[in-house]
Amino acid sequence: MGEAQVKFLLGERDIPTHWVNLMADLPGGAPPPLHPGTKEPAGPDDLAPLFPMGLILQEVAAEPEIEIPDAVREAYKLWRPTPLYRARRLEQVLDTPAHIYYKYEGGSPPGSHKANTAVAQAYENAAAGIRKLTTETGAGQWGSALAFACSMFGLECEVWMVGSSYDQKPYRRSMMETWGATVHRSPSELTQAGRGQRQHTTGSLGIAISEAVEVAAQNEDTHYSLGSVLNHVLLHQSVIGQEALAQMEMAGEYPDTVIACVGGGSNFGGLTFPFLRRVIRDGHQTRVIAAEPAACPTLTRGVYAYDFGDTAGLTPLMPMYTLGHDFVPPPVHAGGLRYHGDSPLVCALVKAGMVEPRAYRQNETFEAAVRFARTEGIIPAPEPAHAIRAVIEEAEAAREAGEEQVILFGLCGHGHFDLSAYDAYLAGKLEDPEFSEADRDAALAALPEAPALV
Amino acid sequence: MGEAQVKFLLGERDIPTHWVNLMADLPGGAPPPLHPGTKEPAGPDDLAPLFPMGLILQEVAAEPEIEIPDAVREAYKLWRPTPLYRARRLEQVLDTPAHIYYKYEGGSPPGSHKANTAVAQAYENAAAGIRKLTTETGAGQWGSALAFACSMFGLECEVWMVGSSYDQKPYRRSMMETWGATVHRSPSELTQAGRGQRQHTTGSLGIAISEAVEVAAQNEDTHYSLGSVLNHVLLHQSVIGQEALAQMEMAGEYPDTVIACVGGGSNFGGLTFPFLRRVIRDGHQTRVIAAEPAACPTLTRGVYAYDFGDTAGLTPLMPMYTLGHDFVPPPVHAGGLRYHGDSPLVCALVKAGMVEPRAYRQNETFEAAVRFARTEGIIPAPEPAHAIRAVIEEAEAAREAGEEQVILFGLCGHGHFDLSAYDAYLAGKLEDPEFSEADRDAALAALPEAPALV
Repeated sequence: MGEAQVKFLLGERDIPTHWVNLMADLPGGAPPPLHPGTKEPAGPDDLAPLFPMGLILQEVAAEPEIEIPDAVREAYKLWRPTPLYRARRLEQVLDTPAHIYYKYEGGSPPGSHKANTAVAQAYENAAAGIRKLTTETGAGQWGSALAFACSMFGLECEVWMVGSSYDQKPYRRSMMETWGATVHRSPSELTQAGRGQRQHTTGSLGIAISEAVEVAAQNEDTHYSLGSVLNHVLLHQSVIGQEALAQMEMAGEYPDTVIACVGGGSNFGGLTFPFLRRVIRDGHQTRVIAAEPAACPTLTRGVYAYDFGDTAGLTPLMPMYTLGHDFVPPPVHAGGLRYHGDSPLVCALVKAGMVEPRAYRQNETFEAAVRFARTEGIIPAPEPAHAIRAVIEEAEAAREAGEEQVILFGLCGHGHFDLSAYDAYLAGKLEDPEFSEADRDAALAALPEAPALV
Repeated sequence: MGEAQVKFLLGERDIPTHWVNLMADLPGGAPPPLHPGTKEPAGPDDLAPLFPMGLILQEVAAEPEIEIPDAVREAYKLWRPTPLYRARRLEQVLDTPAHIYYKYEGGSPPGSHKANTAVAQAYENAAAGIRKLTTETGAGQWGSALAFACSMFGLECEVWMVGSSYDQKPYRRSMMETWGATVHRSPSELTQAGRGQRQHTTGSLGIAISEAVEVAAQNEDTHYSLGSVLNHVLLHQSVIGQEALAQMEMAGEYPDTVIACVGGGSNFGGLTFPFLRRVIRDGHQTRVIAAEPAACPTLTRGVYAYDFGDTAGLTPLMPMYTLGHDFVPPPVHAGGLRYHGDSPLVCALVKAGMVEPRAYRQNETFEAAVRFARTEGIIPAPEPAHAIRAVIEEAEAAREAGEEQVILFGLCGHGHFDLSAYDAYLAGKLEDPEFSEADRDAALAALPEAPALV
């Protein structure tokens, strides 16, 4: 027809058949996690009380690709393949020669990319005869995704939701309950960990993790599920980047720059790893940018060291950039990015100089989000708004330089449950919290004893 | 691959090029609206203060098809074509031989089918040199859609939101403001109509319409926009049914029964009119079911008569099934179905026996919605949950009869802003308001003087 295309759509048969395991291609690999007691590399047996063997084998896998089970591909069909958009209206408003593409994951029933790993984890647990999954959730994105996935695979789901979110975001709780999950306000009276933290009435992600892990560890038929950081979670998300590769080919272009926000790393790894594998294997010259909040600047202002994954210090020691497991990020609305550490795989890539981290303030991030909503229509979640901020910077740089850059970014979720933050921004009342170097330094002083990372 | 398909997807080039105007095929047509003073048929001039001539010509058009302007098709690309799903998981749970398909409109940026007419109306007004659109909104679906459309076409947008919704649904208000609209609580101090109704502090749709119409009528550069009932609105929605026809063909089936919820009729007409045209033209034996709330049973318990479209009695007299323009429906959560009348076109089809209306109670509707969410994943808005209730009835009847029925229904929006109603249902606290025959009879006693309809 000669008309300019806005969307690039795949069919159900184009849903990837394999997940991409970047660990197999990473030069030198990533350092192993360590047992917190022995400081020896943690092995499959250390994970067995919490995870089914199917997921543990994915966690430590050395193969470059792992086949996606039929039942998981079948569940993916409910919302995959997801669309790739060309942001023509945003390009016009920015008056840029850059071509801007985005991969949109907000069309999944729970509204974000988290569904990609939730159904894979629910499937492996159901196949192993597990009856119930426990997890924690902050703002509710991950809890919603796991509740949805458990309803698909006939599992019970029990979620500990950070107290302050439980009080402020009743809709996310109702969403989980509509899918049949049980949701507890954390700290709860149901666990030793919760009872011991009664004084922290508003709760924290660290406490909620401890409660969910405690219940899973004490019950034979119950496992624990984590929504980011671990290798197998990033593995599951690689369907995003694989589809995007095929869709960029449909568009007849290849990205010069790939941009995604990063909290625990699952959205970032999902979009970028298939592109980074081409950088490693074929020498593609693709810039990869990780956008994080200036209030919780793990990759830009943390140290590369072994640290606990949780506040209470129960998990293995993870090799990562960290602000210290005691660091409590200020309350920015991008709840999914408020994490003191980051996926070891993503951190190894930053350390190797293959990924460029950038940090953005909350108000400039929402300014970018509103600009996007008023041109492209979709209201983004606060997390991918950090990526949009970076995209606008790059598109403006391309205009200054007169260069026809091709930019791809990940729009990992919609902002339907974050509109109170938009309301505050539009009213000029959105806080713009500073990062505290003193808090970081205090938290770093409490890093566990462990071998140094180079 | 031999795998069973769940989704049937079209490409951008398959977005319809024309809208379907069923008026041209309706045997005998529909009776004309009447001027409220003269009781003569209302003509284009009567509508000119509020609507641009482009829309007025669509309102009175006699051609069976009307070309969609390029700029509107371009805007449709942001979310169209929409997917058609086969509800295989729901079929399994119901253990029915019926094949159930649904057309999902919840993926549009504002989250419902309302976007289809909003962009068409914004385009015609922008092309006519209009600077601003005013409208009313109840729960906020229509106001969100128009705010989104105005941001696409560079128009200002001013919305009067029913007071009780304004207080209870701040997220919908923030959504409109994110797209740049100005939202007023109705009754407001900004209009004569609003100041005259100060005593009704929670407001009503009728008052909000009066405020929006007053401002549009008083300003040369401002028009009014309506989200349902009128012929041109249903016309714009016909893209839904046209795509569904093509997608059913992809699936290799043709529906025996088509089901949609009906409030003002825009979702219902959008899905069913292309199928009803085949019934009229080709003698297809398709059953068409209109699902409405038992608390506001316009089609099942109203009378067929001329009545005002609004509570204040400012609009032309419309030929329709009505509960009386003074009838105030009890506060069910399906705000989009709380209307005393209905589209004249839909009413003429019911009168002619071509559409079968059915009414459902609020609790049985939410029971169906939760069942759908736990099998198909998507959480439906309360309005299409009425259609889901009818679908489940039909699928169970097919099981009893051992018949392989093919059923198609319209899932016109998601329930992300209706989760407080789900919360009430799951807690066993959802009201199930009765329809009041006494209230209807009192309202019908106040019908305006007008020729009888046969």
